[in-house]
Amino acid sequence: MASMQSQANRNHYAALAANAGKLTSPQAVIDYNDVNWTALTGEPGGVDYIEVDAGGVPAMWIVPKGADEQRVLFYAHGGGFIGGSIYTHRKLVGHLAKAIGCRALLYDYPLAHQAKHPAQIEAATSAWDWLVDQGFDPKRIVIAGDSCGAVPTYGVLQRLRAQRRPLPVATLIISGWFDMALTGASYETNRDKDPAFAREAVDWLAANFIGDADRRDPEVSPLYADLSGFPPVFLQVGADETLVDESRMFAERARQAGVETRLDVFDGMLHSFQMMAGRAPEADDAIARFAAWVRPRLGLPAPGEKTSEKAA
Amino acid sequence: MASMQSQANRNHYAALAANAGKLTSPQAVIDYNDVNWTALTGEPGGVDYIEVDAGGVPAMWIVPKGADEQRVLFYAHGGGFIGGSIYTHRKLVGHLAKAIGCRALLYDYPLAHQAKHPAQIEAATSAWDWLVDQGFDPKRIVIAGDSCGAVPTYGVLQRLRAQRRPLPVATLIISGWFDMALTGASYETNRDKDPAFAREAVDWLAANFIGDADRRDPEVSPLYADLSGFPPVFLQVGADETLVDESRMFAERARQAGVETRLDVFDGMLHSFQMMAGRAPEADDAIARFAAWVRPRLGLPAPGEKTSEKAA
Repeated sequence: MASMQSQANRNHYAALAANAGKLTSPQAVIDYNDVNWTALTGEPGGVDYIEVDAGGVPAMWIVPKGADEQRVLFYAHGGGFIGGSIYTHRKLVGHLAKAIGCRALLYDYPLAHQAKHPAQIEAATSAWDWLVDQGFDPKRIVIAGDSCGAVPTYGVLQRLRAQRRPLPVATLIISGWFDMALTGASYETNRDKDPAFAREAVDWLAANFIGDADRRDPEVSPLYADLSGFPPVFLQVGADETLVDESRMFAERARQAGVETRLDVFDGMLHSFQMMAGRAPEADDAIARFAAWVRPRLGLPAPGEKTSEKAA
Repeated sequence: MASMQSQANRNHYAALAANAGKLTSPQAVIDYNDVNWTALTGEPGGVDYIEVDAGGVPAMWIVPKGADEQRVLFYAHGGGFIGGSIYTHRKLVGHLAKAIGCRALLYDYPLAHQAKHPAQIEAATSAWDWLVDQGFDPKRIVIAGDSCGAVPTYGVLQRLRAQRRPLPVATLIISGWFDMALTGASYETNRDKDPAFAREAVDWLAANFIGDADRRDPEVSPLYADLSGFPPVFLQVGADETLVDESRMFAERARQAGVETRLDVFDGMLHSFQMMAGRAPEADDAIARFAAWVRPRLGLPAPGEKTSEKAA
């Protein structure tokens, strides 16, 4: 059963839906998320936050005390391309980086009222290029994002592959938005469970992001991308969200392409419930699973393991 | 007339009062403030946050991009000794430091359920000693705090003077709590205007902080301290708060002691309304006033002035 604490995410989305009619300007949506979405997440503590210009892209180094300095979580925040920022996601990414034991680079990209696709993928690519130019080795970088952050994340991967450049070592996706064509059956089956992401609302978000562009363009909708050769991916999604089938379909496509794929569906949870990190046990459990899965891929010992100094 | 945005602070305190009966443990109060108080403040942006052990005291360097590196705002957060932290006040102090153009050291101290007076003043003194040991010159440090943060602030000043050590160059106080004996008439005259700080509530906070100690001990209640020789002070307070007379009485005491004193009372405002920095114009105005007053005292040009490089 969902924890009492996890109700906060459900309340947030119910309130968002109830207030949607009042959020009549792009800035009103941004402000609403800055106040209310941000409030879901507990402070991880022991994490430093340093803003940086990442090749023209506003970004934030998120540096847990004592974390490995060579490994990086490269993170695209969600927000439907109408909200979210390095500030709304500061604490979530702090929890993730702290659990993994690495630093993170959380970057911004233009929202849809500022620039349409592919400006978001171009910003993500510039931030990636900057990161690698700093000397970080892609084999020590995990690429990650939540919700619409899946789009710049897989945009970067597709562009790197097209350029035959090194890929990151693994991918983490929270409640990924993979399909602007909205073909998932869960838009109907979870309609009554998910207060915020009715098909009509998500359809509006898609049109707002791409205008009249092809909704099955593989850079717009990673579900239609060639995923072959991509790094292992761990997908997490809430069982109650209308987007749950997007993760299921994407996992199937990734497996068919030969990508090592793990999909964890969390009972009773809604979209991006990991934003409740530090408050709700489901969120902390989800983050611990990410960390346990990704640490060996980064060449770090699994949680609980110690590097033996007695080894022969 | 109070701005529409400034209603947020009033709503916060009304909700706090309405929920007080449910906040039955110290942790519940801490959590409530972490979520709700923190949410009042906008992100200043362009400010870095680096946690540090300041001589055994948990603290946070708050470093605006491009700020002077020699000048420091040394800051004690409020919260009635039952809430507040380096996290609840991160953004407020970020706004202050950014406006002044200096870095800030925001420090924690034990809350009353962890340790009674004088543990709070001892923590503040340890953080001060650490700061000076880092090589910062007291003549380039402003000491500041809000609400109960006035107590460790004036505790540090009294202990430094007793030891004949150098004092900071100026003092900023937001809605200071100066008088545990609660002698201000505004506990009655503003009783209907201030939803949170009825005399009974503040009396409970005082007892919780000091137990049976003397409420007129000058370290407990700076209103009764010898203020002679102390640095110039700028006091800001809301006209509608029950604590407004504490600032008026303290200003009178400071003037009588020969301390250069400025008191600004803000119409229609409640306790620590500066927490709405980045959202409500009254808060931004108040912070701009602090910055304009303190910059010349720190040897920085007044806002709008430029250092002439053509000067003979």
